[in-house]
Amino acid sequence: MKIAIDAMGGDFAPEAVIKGINQAKKNFPEMTFLIFGDEVKIRELLENEKNVEIVPTTEVVDFHDDPLRVIKTKKDSSMVRAIQAVKLGEADAVLSAGSTGALLTAGLLQIGRIKKVERPGLLTTLPTADGRGFDMLDLGANAENKPEHLRDYAILGSYYAKHVRGIENPRVALLSNGAEESKGSAMIKEVHGMLQELNEQSLIHFIGNIEARDILDGIADVVVADGFTGNAVLKAIEGTMSTMFKVLKSTIKNGGLKTKIGGALIKNDLSALKSMGSGVGGAVLFGLKAPLVKAHGNSNPEAIASAIGQVHKMVESQVVGKLVEYYGKKETEIK
Amino acid sequence: MKIAIDAMGGDFAPEAVIKGINQAKKNFPEMTFLIFGDEVKIRELLENEKNVEIVPTTEVVDFHDDPLRVIKTKKDSSMVRAIQAVKLGEADAVLSAGSTGALLTAGLLQIGRIKKVERPGLLTTLPTADGRGFDMLDLGANAENKPEHLRDYAILGSYYAKHVRGIENPRVALLSNGAEESKGSAMIKEVHGMLQELNEQSLIHFIGNIEARDILDGIADVVVADGFTGNAVLKAIEGTMSTMFKVLKSTIKNGGLKTKIGGALIKNDLSALKSMGSGVGGAVLFGLKAPLVKAHGNSNPEAIASAIGQVHKMVESQVVGKLVEYYGKKETEIK
Repeated sequence: MKIAIDAMGGDFAPEAVIKGINQAKKNFPEMTFLIFGDEVKIRELLENEKNVEIVPTTEVVDFHDDPLRVIKTKKDSSMVRAIQAVKLGEADAVLSAGSTGALLTAGLLQIGRIKKVERPGLLTTLPTADGRGFDMLDLGANAENKPEHLRDYAILGSYYAKHVRGIENPRVALLSNGAEESKGSAMIKEVHGMLQELNEQSLIHFIGNIEARDILDGIADVVVADGFTGNAVLKAIEGTMSTMFKVLKSTIKNGGLKTKIGGALIKNDLSALKSMGSGVGGAVLFGLKAPLVKAHGNSNPEAIASAIGQVHKMVESQVVGKLVEYYGKKETEIK
Repeated sequence: MKIAIDAMGGDFAPEAVIKGINQAKKNFPEMTFLIFGDEVKIRELLENEKNVEIVPTTEVVDFHDDPLRVIKTKKDSSMVRAIQAVKLGEADAVLSAGSTGALLTAGLLQIGRIKKVERPGLLTTLPTADGRGFDMLDLGANAENKPEHLRDYAILGSYYAKHVRGIENPRVALLSNGAEESKGSAMIKEVHGMLQELNEQSLIHFIGNIEARDILDGIADVVVADGFTGNAVLKAIEGTMSTMFKVLKSTIKNGGLKTKIGGALIKNDLSALKSMGSGVGGAVLFGLKAPLVKAHGNSNPEAIASAIGQVHKMVESQVVGKLVEYYGKKETEIK
């Protein structure tokens, strides 16, 4: 198993990325790492070079680059070269903590879509109070979707939950403005019908509509949304968590002695709560011909190692191959 | 000033509603309360009947009633009668903590829209870390919107922030999947252009797109969204706050002695944080010919009194009359 890694992407690159690789190498001794970036720095940070191939690159994609053009303007960037390694069959999957827009666009153009998946969706595993988590897509790879795309997301999400997260018969829900079947925009109502059909064919386990209020409760294993709404919901969750921590911190800081002592005593537990906000692993642009994982821009070595573990599971489970097979077989049902 | 109140709506009706009225009467000695509901119970709970008219009704709208039909099926309900009092000019505004769907539908049909406001939007004031708050609409009165509706929400939101909340030159932002002008669905891009035009005409102070991640930071005073996305974002915020409290509570409960002591010491401050989640006042179906306010279903007397204060401000500021005037004058600009 070979994984291509963009060493130069993310706020703490290349240090956090390489230290994450050092950790992951212990967990996955059979994995080979193709590392793209500044050769000298990479070599300095690596604990050893076993199962490692360093590919020196001269450019770095940053947040000012136009995502639509990086393939042309930053040909020798660590990100574009890492993606290209997958395209050329030199690696099984790619991981980057760099600019989301650039990574998704370059990944889509270079790696390409699974046949019949018109619009790959951005998927991530979000936390629930019970610690089990759920997968949600599309989180914003698309600013607009057609009903058929959301039908694909139900299939893609089910495959991910089953094969990558090991959930048997994952419960799929459709994000709407009410749990009742009658709720939603015209598009959501149409998708509802499509998912009911997939359910009747036993292709997914559809449990109906879900409101954004209930998704963190662990009622569903997969939540299907259009990219615009999914993106807004994800960011609302992130923003709320971050705001509540700020308020909690300043409450403790500006409180009386009693509050300060109390705050100091529960500090460790609060950081456990905080980890809830950072989600689990990275975000996958799912529906491509190979796994492409975007780690958080502010990933530390642990987060990188965790994202490598996620890529490992995706490759090992052959979830992409299984999807290719599904979409190949279902000639008649799927346009 | 006369306010019609549905005494029978909400989880703790009529007790919470009448106790809320008892409080509000002290704050607003010039206000007259038209109270609709069970006469005996209302009389029992009222501290005194100064400035009060009780209108006995025999029915109660509940969550099983079809919102589209309550006007016909529950003609003598406290909710429908309270709305009708506004229609007949017997009251200046209406307040209910009952079923949202029924209240919005009956209110729209009975009170009617301000001329040229095609789709009134649901508006509420949400909390920010700095305590200032912001107004957001539409929060789900509509499952689908046209660009013109969102243009109206920018105007409506500005008028509310200025006249009801006293914010000079309120900053209006458009909810999108990125802060850049280029971000968003085709509809959001079209709305962006419309709001820029309103800004050039000095009719609003438009500051551009905003992501759901940043709305709680107090960057904008008014956030404009389509009803489907606005509803999802509001519910994601509510759900995240509620989940974090659950996790925090169970962390403290299941923690060691140190954590338990810490939790006990900061308990009061946590409840201050919790109040952040309940928002400020009720939700307004804004764009009607008179104020219609929906208090939370689980309102306690304080929440009811606060919502009455909100109604008082809306009536006193004559915000609805000012909007009628605006839409009357702007014959040429507004279709």
